Amino acid sequence: MNFTSYMPDALREARAAAARDEVPVGAVLIGADGRVLARAGNRTRELSDPTAHAEILVIRAACAALGSERLPGARLWVTLEPCPMCAAAISAARIETLYYGADDPRMGGVRHGARVFDHPQCHHRPGIVDGISAEESRRLLQDFFRERRDGCNYTK
Amino acid sequence: MNFTSYMPDALREARAAAARDEVPVGAVLIGADGRVLARAGNRTRELSDPTAHAEILVIRAACAALGSERLPGARLWVTLEPCPMCAAAISAARIETLYYGADDPRMGGVRHGARVFDHPQCHHRPGIVDGISAEESRRLLQDFFRERRDGCNYTK
Repeated sequence: MNFTSYMPDALREARAAAARDEVPVGAVLIGADGRVLARAGNRTRELSDPTAHAEILVIRAACAALGSERLPGARLWVTLEPCPMCAAAISAARIETLYYGADDPRMGGVRHGARVFDHPQCHHRPGIVDGISAEESRRLLQDFFRERRDGCNYTK
Repeated sequence: MNFTSYMPDALREARAAAARDEVPVGAVLIGADGRVLARAGNRTRELSDPTAHAEILVIRAACAALGSERLPGARLWVTLEPCPMCAAAISAARIETLYYGADDPRMGGVRHGARVFDHPQCHHRPGIVDGISAEESRRLLQDFFRERRDGCNYTK
């Protein structure tokens, strides 16, 4: 199988987010046909929108472009473990596979805390591949918060 | 204390959603000063947006209007137990109190399944008042799905 990693693209979005003074998390959404549907980094401050995480932005953009609430066969690449909000949106959009970078023990909702996909109330569970470029993702977040909040751990 | 219930308004939004062929869930968001900040019903089909639940729409509208990612002191009235996506957005927006109608054993993420507020990864837990006009909320959903999906239980 000819497999392309989009984590370098997602990391580029995360770096661009940091440059905008947004928490450096980036995402790329790939359609069932292999086309890039959307790319985004966090924009919660710029948009005054607490839901404007990278994952939500790419899902909303792709769904709007395709005129569909669902993205069967789509693959989401994101630099950090999604929070419960993003995990539930990934499920609602019927994304097939979630590839993510660093774990987020502080805010994550996939392997930590709410574990959104692990309950019968979750009606679609994506395949999950984690730990991709985790070290670089984590370093971006740590550098961001070290510069701004002096010692605060990374978080969305 | 002079206390106004906004559940009748939220139910009106839910009925309007049903009339648009959207799952009948409605929400009203009240600011710290008692002003109505936003009202909405689900619009996932109309907007081709799986995140366009009533709760997300009122949070996004209020945050955009106020130019803030956070809504301290705000109170959210919604006809159905929020799903994990909406619960996490409620937490991110720092909403003070969540008033909801019917429980949602099938999709809920507050009292069921992911129980988003009940983990250390949740950094703001609103006060919760449930069961308000629950019977009417439930009936709206049951009627909606009975007409459309013949026997499917209610769900967002």
